[in-house]
Amino acid sequence: MEAVQNEKEGTKRGQISIHTENIFPIIKKFLYSDHEIFLRELVSNAVDATQKLKKLASYGEYNGELGDDLKVTVAFDKEAKTITISDRGIGMSADEIQKYINQIAFSGATEFIEKYKDKSGQVDEKAIIGHFGLGFYSAFMVAKEVEIISKSYRDEEPISRWVCDGSTEFEIGPAESRVSGGTERGTDVVLHIAEDSEEFLDEYRLRGILEKYGKFLPIPIEFDGKVVNNTTPIWTKAPSDLTDDDYKNFYRELYPMSEEPLFWIHLNVDYPFNLTGVLYFPKLKDGFQFKREKIQLYSRQVFITDEVKDVVPDFLMLLHGVIDSPDIPLNVSRSFLQTDSNVKKINSYITRKVADKLNDLFKADRAAYEAKFDDIGLFVKYGILSDDKFYEKAKDFVLLKNTEANGTPSRYFTLNEYREHVQANQTDKSETVVMLYATNAQQQHGYIESAHRRGYDVLLMDTQIDAHFINALEYKLEKTSFKRVDADTLDKLIDKGLNTESVLSEEDRTKLKDLFEQTLDNKSLAISIESMPADELPVTITMPEFIRRMKDMSALSGEQSFYGSLPVSYNVAVNANHPLTSKILSTTDAEAQKTLVKQVYDLALLSQNMLTGADLTAFVRRSVAQL
Amino acid sequence: MEAVQNEKEGTKRGQISIHTENIFPIIKKFLYSDHEIFLRELVSNAVDATQKLKKLASYGEYNGELGDDLKVTVAFDKEAKTITISDRGIGMSADEIQKYINQIAFSGATEFIEKYKDKSGQVDEKAIIGHFGLGFYSAFMVAKEVEIISKSYRDEEPISRWVCDGSTEFEIGPAESRVSGGTERGTDVVLHIAEDSEEFLDEYRLRGILEKYGKFLPIPIEFDGKVVNNTTPIWTKAPSDLTDDDYKNFYRELYPMSEEPLFWIHLNVDYPFNLTGVLYFPKLKDGFQFKREKIQLYSRQVFITDEVKDVVPDFLMLLHGVIDSPDIPLNVSRSFLQTDSNVKKINSYITRKVADKLNDLFKADRAAYEAKFDDIGLFVKYGILSDDKFYEKAKDFVLLKNTEANGTPSRYFTLNEYREHVQANQTDKSETVVMLYATNAQQQHGYIESAHRRGYDVLLMDTQIDAHFINALEYKLEKTSFKRVDADTLDKLIDKGLNTESVLSEEDRTKLKDLFEQTLDNKSLAISIESMPADELPVTITMPEFIRRMKDMSALSGEQSFYGSLPVSYNVAVNANHPLTSKILSTTDAEAQKTLVKQVYDLALLSQNMLTGADLTAFVRRSVAQL
Repeated sequence: MEAVQNEKEGTKRGQISIHTENIFPIIKKFLYSDHEIFLRELVSNAVDATQKLKKLASYGEYNGELGDDLKVTVAFDKEAKTITISDRGIGMSADEIQKYINQIAFSGATEFIEKYKDKSGQVDEKAIIGHFGLGFYSAFMVAKEVEIISKSYRDEEPISRWVCDGSTEFEIGPAESRVSGGTERGTDVVLHIAEDSEEFLDEYRLRGILEKYGKFLPIPIEFDGKVVNNTTPIWTKAPSDLTDDDYKNFYRELYPMSEEPLFWIHLNVDYPFNLTGVLYFPKLKDGFQFKREKIQLYSRQVFITDEVKDVVPDFLMLLHGVIDSPDIPLNVSRSFLQTDSNVKKINSYITRKVADKLNDLFKADRAAYEAKFDDIGLFVKYGILSDDKFYEKAKDFVLLKNTEANGTPSRYFTLNEYREHVQANQTDKSETVVMLYATNAQQQHGYIESAHRRGYDVLLMDTQIDAHFINALEYKLEKTSFKRVDADTLDKLIDKGLNTESVLSEEDRTKLKDLFEQTLDNKSLAISIESMPADELPVTITMPEFIRRMKDMSALSGEQSFYGSLPVSYNVAVNANHPLTSKILSTTDAEAQKTLVKQVYDLALLSQNMLTGADLTAFVRRSVAQL
Repeated sequence: MEAVQNEKEGTKRGQISIHTENIFPIIKKFLYSDHEIFLRELVSNAVDATQKLKKLASYGEYNGELGDDLKVTVAFDKEAKTITISDRGIGMSADEIQKYINQIAFSGATEFIEKYKDKSGQVDEKAIIGHFGLGFYSAFMVAKEVEIISKSYRDEEPISRWVCDGSTEFEIGPAESRVSGGTERGTDVVLHIAEDSEEFLDEYRLRGILEKYGKFLPIPIEFDGKVVNNTTPIWTKAPSDLTDDDYKNFYRELYPMSEEPLFWIHLNVDYPFNLTGVLYFPKLKDGFQFKREKIQLYSRQVFITDEVKDVVPDFLMLLHGVIDSPDIPLNVSRSFLQTDSNVKKINSYITRKVADKLNDLFKADRAAYEAKFDDIGLFVKYGILSDDKFYEKAKDFVLLKNTEANGTPSRYFTLNEYREHVQANQTDKSETVVMLYATNAQQQHGYIESAHRRGYDVLLMDTQIDAHFINALEYKLEKTSFKRVDADTLDKLIDKGLNTESVLSEEDRTKLKDLFEQTLDNKSLAISIESMPADELPVTITMPEFIRRMKDMSALSGEQSFYGSLPVSYNVAVNANHPLTSKILSTTDAEAQKTLVKQVYDLALLSQNMLTGADLTAFVRRSVAQL
């Protein structure tokens, strides 16, 4: 701390200083949460040095030959306990080492860009990886001693060797040769691996790290005699230069075990932020049962993370693919990321591109779009739920699918088409169009069949997100209501104000209700006598829509909620017009009457998949005895 | 960088230096991932300064009065856009400010401990929070300007004021008074909040942060006139000074919405690592359906994180409570944490303590232990699966529960007790004890009833972890095999080498088999004619144990797997000795014969909950028509 006397009485000014010997261990140990990052940083630096040389050559500032293999080499020696990263790039003189390496946080890349900005008018920032000069020091996370042997591209500069044991002291001096034994241009970084990091002296481990972070670096990375990277991944190319097979092959490269993607979107934007990438729509299998972290985030072809939360809209987290942007702030806090304006712009750009792509697919080939809709639907519905702007576009291409009816296969409809389709027959007396749906075509089969017999259509809403989707549609669509096909008797589900006449007298109805109440002896059941067509079942069990839907919605969230804790309530509708009802009333033997009531009730329970346990066992044994 | 000539030819030594103006922004923005941490750091510093004063007083180095309210005050001013943290602690002179504040990473706490180590022989390191001197600078994550106004406890020192606008320049000079207007001992830190951080100028936000990080700080923290913390949480007290109600009240303090805990373990160890804490066993509801991050990690009463992965064994992550240890490295990488020897020791210490506690409970009051076992079971089983050392202890107190049989309520058994219980009746011809189980007492009711009719016992294994648990037990226990009660016919599940005689001739058996095969017309069904007791059902559908269990296990993992993708196979056992079988054979009308076959098959499907969709609807309508 130096303080200089100031004009104000007694007040001094001074400079904050950083105690190098105290902060150095913090930088070494705390800056990166994963030790394996050291390799990403050092290889990135080597790529950086190589690209600088290419740039100098393109400006005519370097006239030597570049060599036909401007590659970076990674090698290790288990005996000597070293890992060596070598490049044939720009190299450093002793002065440059002292400038760039010995003064932590002096960003060499920044200075390089500044210097060459005016030469070409616009700088290709993409070509420069280094963010700030701390990366090199990550070497000390795993090494007890680090050597740099470097030869500048300038012929007059001799080879220099720098060595540091992780304290703040270093040595620098001339060297005879590079690690290779030669005297060619470029830099070697030799790590003498510390005891607690010997896990890194392993071929598979090193290859794994290189493949994770360096798979798409722009300069060839050689390890164990083989190049590990693809220097020109498709997102760096123009869409017009790529075929469908190129996209599919790249998908296989990213996700070797996956099925073919449904389709993809090539992202490419320069302004107001810089972003390239390819997003794939995968085939989805079991709803939400899969890994979400499939989108990989790169910065100038260096892999950064596969946690893209906040960068990609939540409803598109199920997409696969890559995003490459130097404009996404790395290493910063989550809360900062959420408020960063570039991130917000990227987020809405991706949403717009996805909506446009889906709309194009829908318009261009409806049949192909429908064939993919079971997979796409989840994205589209999730998007509708979470983003009103997306809904405005998606309302024209989100599809509803109905259940098959008596051999008529199921079909897809847009929202408008479906309204058109059911309007005539399914509008109730309050002018509301009632859309019937099933959440499980198998379990609700009996109810679906009854609805079809009336000429009603039944939608299939069997994905996990549908309870929320239905709720959102009811809110957004006017005069529309959704009811599960077993939410009430059909006459009440779509109440057209027409009453089926009852064959029973008021007295008989009361008698029947009392009989069922006494026989079933269950206070939680609401029993009612309904005048239904004679071909409906004698007893139907229904579950009111509202609470059931709220329970379905809270089940998806996986958390305890008010609705989740409510008991399900059931209504028991006895069909006054069914012949068995008359038979029950006319049975004089009290036991036989009770048996008949129980049997029709058990059959209603069966239809609703509610006859289980001891009741089911007794039913089966009773039925076997009657055969 | 300064370099001095070295004796070796051409080689120089030098000091690595840190460019303050470059690294300062990195420290400010990158060091903490959450901006709200600034308040934790500044309040911790204030607590630290207060504890130092108390310590000096206890050493007789400070003879002034401490004041009866040695508290820390946090205040904010929405108009002036400031947040102020004030303490009545040790204070700083101008020189001390320059030493501790202006030189980043000069750890004041370290120096203080060094100085006072010999005075008391042993230093109470616990009383000092500060880790390294970077915490203060987190203020610049949210403030554009920071003022420090401080008055040292030493009477002769005047009040000083330091101010810095976030650049590396600062001003320091004398001040008239503290923020309060007085001239009393202590420090004020005044943050002039930056525009992008005005969210923090909010009562609820600040209270929330204080309650999150400072709820159990050892010095009272006052905010808006109220003390927000409990300075002596129970883990800092001796177990002998605490009642059950103290533990329960603390649990309610930590988790206000939770039910009472089942029991708890007070952790207290000084050597070879320092750790205190209280772990609670919560009541578990829906298997794994709850948050895992319920254990809070503290360091000297400062909340650090609720992500305790690696510190607490995985199978105990479902516990609740607090752990306080200055020996767990903070802010370091995950991989470092996994290999840290203290963390490993802490991990196995907790496992041992939990096993001992469970064993004590089991021994002390078996009935109370059994009453809790439905909740404890998950921990115990998970522990058995993941830790062999835990199994060695747990095999004596893990319990099996059977299903109720004909009014006999279900009971709990230890592994040895259960073996004893079923050995006589359930040992097969290869001397293996076959333990029958059901995964759902309702769905498998018919099968359970049949087993009970034979005098067999059936275990209830209905938690998500049981498929894995059963698998582990089969591996660990000798001559023991587990079979689900519907995995085969009873005679084959426990094959005692005794054959029930068949009333059918070989010819009739062949005829019967052909008839079923032709009528059911389903190649995936394996139909066999079995000689079973006449009181079994005419047809029984079974699912072989192995593939079903593997599928159950893979379902729990939630990932696609080989077994998960296999189709379930079913066996159809026709009971040769059931009267209906003879009736089928003797029916001469081919249609009537087929109807009978279908009906007994449908009833078997019903028993196995496999009659669904159109088949169930048809069955119900057919049954209604027959009434």
